[in-house]
Amino acid sequence: MTQPQTTPDAADATARVRLSVRVDFGGEARIGPGKIKLLETVALTGSISAAGRALGMSYRRAWLLLDALNRTFLEPVILTSAGGAHGGGAQVTPFGLDLVAAYRALEADAEDRAAERLGFLRERLRAGATGAGLDYDE
Amino acid sequence: MTQPQTTPDAADATARVRLSVRVDFGGEARIGPGKIKLLETVALTGSISAAGRALGMSYRRAWLLLDALNRTFLEPVILTSAGGAHGGGAQVTPFGLDLVAAYRALEADAEDRAAERLGFLRERLRAGATGAGLDYDE
Repeated sequence: MTQPQTTPDAADATARVRLSVRVDFGGEARIGPGKIKLLETVALTGSISAAGRALGMSYRRAWLLLDALNRTFLEPVILTSAGGAHGGGAQVTPFGLDLVAAYRALEADAEDRAAERLGFLRERLRAGATGAGLDYDE
Repeated sequence: MTQPQTTPDAADATARVRLSVRVDFGGEARIGPGKIKLLETVALTGSISAAGRALGMSYRRAWLLLDALNRTFLEPVILTSAGGAHGGGAQVTPFGLDLVAAYRALEADAEDRAAERLGFLRERLRAGATGAGLDYDE
């Protein structure tokens, strides 16, 4: 068609579709955008407590998530150095950085394909749609 | 290398990595594996209540999720016919079937790429890893 079809209540079709990808390795071993963002933030800040603050989570919560990741694989994603309570530094390992990079590359692959696969949905998106946020997308 | 490296506690590297993809159109408009599975089950059963039962959710929950999807786009994903309380039939529209197909195709794209991107992670997965299930992957 020569003219794009528009309707008064169509959403902004130029808005970016965002994807999130969750990877399930079986059992309880999963990675997804939350833990990846946490790892990235630790890599930037060099500190679990600073990363937790930046992401609005408690030190304990951040520590538990990173410890869980460390137990998921045969090698750690993060190493900590001593320094008193919450005071030690934290360093993401080369393996941890590879994990982050692989996840982000996979996500970028999927976002590239989404533009092609889901474009027709975006064009039919209702402006101000609020109902679909019902959280049943686990 | 000519021999695969194995370790006593390595997880089964042939286990399938499963991905789930959540699509965020902005605002509250999101689709993910839960709503897609529900739509597929309605398509198979022709009934919201039967689909809800099959997925272990209440009729009300299933109805709310489908109604939310119907409000997300400019055209409905599902049509219902009268038939008394919970007794009417439900039919997924051609648009709804297109939505399901596009989502599943996108997911398959991502799973194909995951084998390539994430193979090195699967090889380093610890057998019986249970800690990483901590649910911070929204």
